[in-house]
Amino acid sequence: MSVNLYDHANELERAIRQSEEFTQLQSMYDAVNSDESARGIFENFRDIQLGLQQKQMNGEEITEAEIEQAQKTAQLVQQHELISKLMESEQRMSLLIQELNKVIMKPLEELYGSMEGPTQ
Amino acid sequence: MSVNLYDHANELERAIRQSEEFTQLQSMYDAVNSDESARGIFENFRDIQLGLQQKQMNGEEITEAEIEQAQKTAQLVQQHELISKLMESEQRMSLLIQELNKVIMKPLEELYGSMEGPTQ
Ligand SMILES: [Ca+2]
Ligand SMILES: [Ca+2]
Repeated sequence: MSVNLYDHANELERAIRQSEEFTQLQSMYDAVNSDESARGIFENFRDIQLGLQQKQMNGEEITEAEIEQAQKTAQLVQQHELISKLMESEQRMSLLIQELNKVIMKPLEELYGSMEGPTQ
Repeated sequence: MSVNLYDHANELERAIRQSEEFTQLQSMYDAVNSDESARGIFENFRDIQLGLQQKQMNGEEITEAEIEQAQKTAQLVQQHELISKLMESEQRMSLLIQELNKVIMKPLEELYGSMEGPTQ
């Protein structure tokens, strides 16, 4: 990777680190992490979601009881102010990353777009 | 998105566009596209690969005949100098993007890394 590219990537990295989106996300994480109850609820929610994703990827069946449990935990999370704020911050950060990627990937999109797609 | 972030993303985009990796990829694409036979072989290879990926994602079974066809087409592609050079360029470009992403995503990796993983 040329020095020039590396420099630009590092500058963007610093800008992300200083962005309102990132600092907000960081402080919401800290807030949830330092609240015993919030952290427990949030980790439980994450664990259940990851477990379901894993099952789906492995093609395993998800039971009704598991779906109910996931819905209950999701409700608990939505009702928790600190956690729902954290999840909003995660959403904003994720949108920012998507926007940045769209900009950065323009050269490749133009290139691939100029090539014929798969034959119908 | 703040103007600052947007500026840095645009600068990185320009640097990618001017990179040796990208200009090389671009000229290999042009070379393959302007060679009737190479373009045909390459598009056929792409179509077969996309078709197999689609089947896999849909959980459909892939027949032995399809695997054989894919292998034959892959061989044809590997033996074709122009196409194999294009594919090398694609690989280099993909590695560059991975490296850039690693740099840009550092703040998020640090943040998520500081949080406890899923409960065992
Ligand atoms: Ca085609
Ligand atoms: Ca945990």
